[in-house]
Amino acid sequence: MAENGARRIRLGMVGGGTGAFIGYVHRIAARIDGDYDLVAGALSSRPDVAKESGRNIGLAEERIYTSYEEMARAEAARPDGIEAVSIVTPNHMHYGPAKAFLEAGIHVICDKPITSTLEDARKLASIQPKNGAKFLLTHNYTGFPLIRQARELVASGALGKIRVIQAEYPQDWLTEPTTDDNKQASWRTDPARSGAGGAIGDIGTHAYNLARFVSGLRTDAVSADLTSFVEGRQLDDNVHIMLRFEGGAKGMLWASQVAVGCENGLQLRIYGDKGGLEWRQDNPNYMWFTEFGKPKQLLTRGGAISGNASSTMNIRIPSGHPEGYLEAFATLYSQFAAVIRGEGADYEALLPSLADGVEGMQFIVASVESSKNDGKWTKLSDV
Amino acid sequence: MAENGARRIRLGMVGGGTGAFIGYVHRIAARIDGDYDLVAGALSSRPDVAKESGRNIGLAEERIYTSYEEMARAEAARPDGIEAVSIVTPNHMHYGPAKAFLEAGIHVICDKPITSTLEDARKLASIQPKNGAKFLLTHNYTGFPLIRQARELVASGALGKIRVIQAEYPQDWLTEPTTDDNKQASWRTDPARSGAGGAIGDIGTHAYNLARFVSGLRTDAVSADLTSFVEGRQLDDNVHIMLRFEGGAKGMLWASQVAVGCENGLQLRIYGDKGGLEWRQDNPNYMWFTEFGKPKQLLTRGGAISGNASSTMNIRIPSGHPEGYLEAFATLYSQFAAVIRGEGADYEALLPSLADGVEGMQFIVASVESSKNDGKWTKLSDV
Amino acid sequence: MAENGARRIRLGMVGGGTGAFIGYVHRIAARIDGDYDLVAGALSSRPDVAKESGRNIGLAEERIYTSYEEMARAEAARPDGIEAVSIVTPNHMHYGPAKAFLEAGIHVICDKPITSTLEDARKLASIQPKNGAKFLLTHNYTGFPLIRQARELVASGALGKIRVIQAEYPQDWLTEPTTDDNKQASWRTDPARSGAGGAIGDIGTHAYNLARFVSGLRTDAVSADLTSFVEGRQLDDNVHIMLRFEGGAKGMLWASQVAVGCENGLQLRIYGDKGGLEWRQDNPNYMWFTEFGKPKQLLTRGGAISGNASSTMNIRIPSGHPEGYLEAFATLYSQFAAVIRGEGADYEALLPSLADGVEGMQFIVASVESSKNDGKWTKLSDV
Amino acid sequence: MAENGARRIRLGMVGGGTGAFIGYVHRIAARIDGDYDLVAGALSSRPDVAKESGRNIGLAEERIYTSYEEMARAEAARPDGIEAVSIVTPNHMHYGPAKAFLEAGIHVICDKPITSTLEDARKLASIQPKNGAKFLLTHNYTGFPLIRQARELVASGALGKIRVIQAEYPQDWLTEPTTDDNKQASWRTDPARSGAGGAIGDIGTHAYNLARFVSGLRTDAVSADLTSFVEGRQLDDNVHIMLRFEGGAKGMLWASQVAVGCENGLQLRIYGDKGGLEWRQDNPNYMWFTEFGKPKQLLTRGGAISGNASSTMNIRIPSGHPEGYLEAFATLYSQFAAVIRGEGADYEALLPSLADGVEGMQFIVASVESSKNDGKWTKLSDV
Repeated sequence: MAENGARRIRLGMVGGGTGAFIGYVHRIAARIDGDYDLVAGALSSRPDVAKESGRNIGLAEERIYTSYEEMARAEAARPDGIEAVSIVTPNHMHYGPAKAFLEAGIHVICDKPITSTLEDARKLASIQPKNGAKFLLTHNYTGFPLIRQARELVASGALGKIRVIQAEYPQDWLTEPTTDDNKQASWRTDPARSGAGGAIGDIGTHAYNLARFVSGLRTDAVSADLTSFVEGRQLDDNVHIMLRFEGGAKGMLWASQVAVGCENGLQLRIYGDKGGLEWRQDNPNYMWFTEFGKPKQLLTRGGAISGNASSTMNIRIPSGHPEGYLEAFATLYSQFAAVIRGEGADYEALLPSLADGVEGMQFIVASVESSKNDGKWTKLSDV
Repeated sequence: MAENGARRIRLGMVGGGTGAFIGYVHRIAARIDGDYDLVAGALSSRPDVAKESGRNIGLAEERIYTSYEEMARAEAARPDGIEAVSIVTPNHMHYGPAKAFLEAGIHVICDKPITSTLEDARKLASIQPKNGAKFLLTHNYTGFPLIRQARELVASGALGKIRVIQAEYPQDWLTEPTTDDNKQASWRTDPARSGAGGAIGDIGTHAYNLARFVSGLRTDAVSADLTSFVEGRQLDDNVHIMLRFEGGAKGMLWASQVAVGCENGLQLRIYGDKGGLEWRQDNPNYMWFTEFGKPKQLLTRGGAISGNASSTMNIRIPSGHPEGYLEAFATLYSQFAAVIRGEGADYEALLPSLADGVEGMQFIVASVESSKNDGKWTKLSDV
Repeated sequence: MAENGARRIRLGMVGGGTGAFIGYVHRIAARIDGDYDLVAGALSSRPDVAKESGRNIGLAEERIYTSYEEMARAEAARPDGIEAVSIVTPNHMHYGPAKAFLEAGIHVICDKPITSTLEDARKLASIQPKNGAKFLLTHNYTGFPLIRQARELVASGALGKIRVIQAEYPQDWLTEPTTDDNKQASWRTDPARSGAGGAIGDIGTHAYNLARFVSGLRTDAVSADLTSFVEGRQLDDNVHIMLRFEGGAKGMLWASQVAVGCENGLQLRIYGDKGGLEWRQDNPNYMWFTEFGKPKQLLTRGGAISGNASSTMNIRIPSGHPEGYLEAFATLYSQFAAVIRGEGADYEALLPSLADGVEGMQFIVASVESSKNDGKWTKLSDV
Repeated sequence: MAENGARRIRLGMVGGGTGAFIGYVHRIAARIDGDYDLVAGALSSRPDVAKESGRNIGLAEERIYTSYEEMARAEAARPDGIEAVSIVTPNHMHYGPAKAFLEAGIHVICDKPITSTLEDARKLASIQPKNGAKFLLTHNYTGFPLIRQARELVASGALGKIRVIQAEYPQDWLTEPTTDDNKQASWRTDPARSGAGGAIGDIGTHAYNLARFVSGLRTDAVSADLTSFVEGRQLDDNVHIMLRFEGGAKGMLWASQVAVGCENGLQLRIYGDKGGLEWRQDNPNYMWFTEFGKPKQLLTRGGAISGNASSTMNIRIPSGHPEGYLEAFATLYSQFAAVIRGEGADYEALLPSLADGVEGMQFIVASVESSKNDGKWTKLSDV
């Protein structure tokens, strides 16, 4: 963190104009630990919005761009040009900027899913970034300290051999038909901008990534039943998937945008032959840990048992003082800053990467295919 | 209840000798509301155990039987013979006694699942009971007042058209290999005594029945992945199922006996296009009810909103005083007593029946078949 | 329990006519474990109600009495007379029957508080019961298995030296003025029938008793602020008390009948220099136990750590299957049956006694006096 | 927020050198919404620590000061001098810098409690700040969106006339004797640096302030029992207080640093004659709201019912995405920035002020006096 005397990273942003949700979140995440200065942006594909948005967040006039190509070119040429860029556009607009900046030698922080098609993801993964530019995929839930600790507990063998993984991510905000003036909803339910998957790409992929991150297990195959419950909706708003992991573990994944009463119910439960873990995003400072035959223990963020986790967690405040969504997001940002500065070797293995992005797209595509084939078990390696 | 001057029903029991869990539970359930006198029993297939067990619970010597056939014959012949019998043997020993007592004109209270094979279940359903003897299947979780209220809320349209049903029943008591001296575990993991399914028959069927009871929806087809994680175990100890209901609703069912940290985690969540409900068995006096766009409400047993439910619920004590598993069980017993006395017309539609038992077996068999066929969607009507 | 071949105790009841809440609860409690046969009753002071109520619960005509004096006399004279009697009248009607039956050599089970005045309580305690007749005060919350376990944990030193005890019992059912047709409310808010205290006698005394039972500590003095918030109410409906225990522990007790949203929120939290315990009545199958510096553990009824508790707890059903209010009540009944049969030596120390009843009255009287004296610290031994 | 084009406020800091907890928190809070640039500091009274700490957070060398007096003088003289200063020293070191900066016309953000003595607080309140410099007391828990909403609900009459307020703040970190190398513990348990109160000043005052903020009620008098349980500790580590509010409401306040298992259990419960509210800091995105006779509702941060609250809340992210301690803190910072810029009229009434600070000291002093006088009811207006 910049609290240790390290210099701040110069950051740009693509997308995230006034009114956009996720761009605003990225900006807060970049500020929390003081590791970045946001100095340039191509905040909208509409020039007037780009201009106004840039002014609103205090960018210098000459560093407000109206296209990402121009921004990549100009910033790469400046001696004080940006070192990293955050890409916070809709899914189908990730690939272009990511490629442009990586090829310009500028580190990329990209929202998830990595692209709108698996093909784009693979192309992106095959790029040779200039000057070893790095890539961070903001699967932000991996930044929660207890999720880091869960991963360590699994890796340490505290759960034994993993048998069952139950992941879910119910929401209810798309229970009713979407109106055009709901900016968040409209692109997420449009195949052209969101990609082949609806709920599966927007939130299912978060649940999948979390299961993958904590368990360390690769998925062998999926059997999926995707549904679009709301009349006229083109993409799935409910996702039922059975999973088979390499090594024999089994799992289920449920994601829904029509589960009335669920705001953002991401939950991971994972059981091995020696122990079990249960965590919910909506109260993320607590995690159940049970060793078979013993009482359940309530682990707390920064609390009594932090294990080795302290080495790789940002512990900003004492246990009992809740941290939330923004801090988890910020942890990815600040640890990526350390990587950029060459101080983050420990973090690099933890941060979601391009390879994770490709695997996430394989998960989406395999699920969509399985669902089209009446739930046929579909291997991720076959798509 | 016998508190209203009604006479007590004379009850017998088959199975449930000393040390048996579920027979003891049935005896308590029969006592709570004072509607039964337990006066006869064939409590074990081992004569010495039958004798000793009968004495322990205070049966008269001449009404302690060593076979159910003898008991059915003798009690039917007595002027003060039993009017109803509780069958609490392992699954494969349900069919014989149920048939014998129904044909002797004695009402039958039978533990679930109804039999160990679908064939037996169908044969039982085709019997012509003497004198209109009735049958109660003790899917005891349907006796919880809030489950009754959930059913009423769905039926009233408060949830709108049902879209998604998530049912689960995780336990952890079979996490490790079973030893022979665990009486409960040994028959439940033995195909000869338990039937084709392990976890699916023991607990999956409870979760299924609960979803069916509350939603009122019939299942069209299942896609299942049953697993036996513990080496040497012959039956499934983990059940992953996707469900398709008639009318278009989708669901998932997870049952497990190896989910470390879960004691008896039966849970039902059900979402329609107007509202959602969420209930857990381990804290059964509370249920979440959300109308779309409004805050979640915590309904309580006997609390502020009981709707029409009061007509069909046993409300023994005020809200805030927890009732539990035994009271829910007792409600089935006391309402079946009312049915026997001819006073329970309202209850009869609520009490799990022979038809429910057959459907439960269809669910088990279809799931087992689907799992053998790599998750092929299998219609319940095809088994 | 009568499941072990022990004969049933012949039981009578004073009070508890049709429509009464607590008498009905006592009858269920007496039935659950099968240790009693209810065979006689003086169920109401109004003869017609007494007659009809007796018939409703199936008493033989000649054992339906219209006065407790007559019942005590007649039953003591019968060879098959009652061995025990349950007294479930309003508080001011406890003393008379309790005295009559104890002097007739009939065991007494009495609802709490023991009497409506401390004087009556002391007189009752000075009686020499005929034939060593025993007395049980139904502080039913002491029957919860986890409360028994809490007591054992404290006694074992697992919490170290006790420092702080926070007890509370909020309800909201008297938030608005009481109408005469609310039978439960009318006598509880009437000083003539309820005694000097309102909420403090009805529920405060439960919270006090629970703190006393679990901690094993005697109270030295109280500083109280009793309030009657509802206009026209003669007795307190909100109780704020600070407590000083012998040995230096401090505590607080809050009881309220006007805390909107609280149904029956009895809660006990107790902290020593090594550990802490937290338990709530409305989800009574769970208790938090923390050893200083370690994660909180969630103990469950009958679960992984039951300690020595198994020797003195009724464990009817496995962990994860919730027991409730009625089972806790039944445990007092069944263990008192064992005491009556001479088999309950272990239980006798656990069951609330006449001495506990006198101490409970001291607590009530000292609190009322302290409140009248503007919160002056008042010793229990001074009243 | 600086996202709307507003310029950033130039900020300084007194205290908060490397290793200090609360200074670090203030810096994050100042960064989250982008309303401040931290450009100067007197971060420690030890010159070497001040220097190193300043460098670590990237201050320009000439703006790293070794005394607050020098900093006030120098910054006031610079054309680009700081506009506001954060004072994050131990309590006894609040008065001096606050006075110095206010008199230099620099806005003051001061940690709580306002001073270590009531006398200092009153002197501070009597100062005439130069150029109308403003003062913010960081009672950070008032920044939680649901606490703001609670205040609005009370003010709107949704709870009716307030009757009972239960506030508590248990922790366990001082369960054992403090060692000198625990920096946080050592000054907090030292009367010279912390003031007359221990737990009461450190956390009791937070609970008090929260009750005051939400209810809008002034406290008339307190009856307190303060205890120091740990041998050798000079200040209280457990606080029991009964409260009487103007208008007749009653309350209790419990604060403890020795309640094993409690990390940071600040909780507020408030009941009126029409409704009740319950909120816990450790899961701050949820609040119970009950209208008498209706089911409890679970309000969520930014969720279905936000009332007028939206006008005065910072809603950074959608409901279901947890915000925490740091965001609540940041809300005070960003709204104070708006006040400084002259855009924050709505906020000014919400932000804890000098007057709140004086009242908080009255609460502390009255409680300490009451406890010394064996719990005598002590009016806040009499100290």
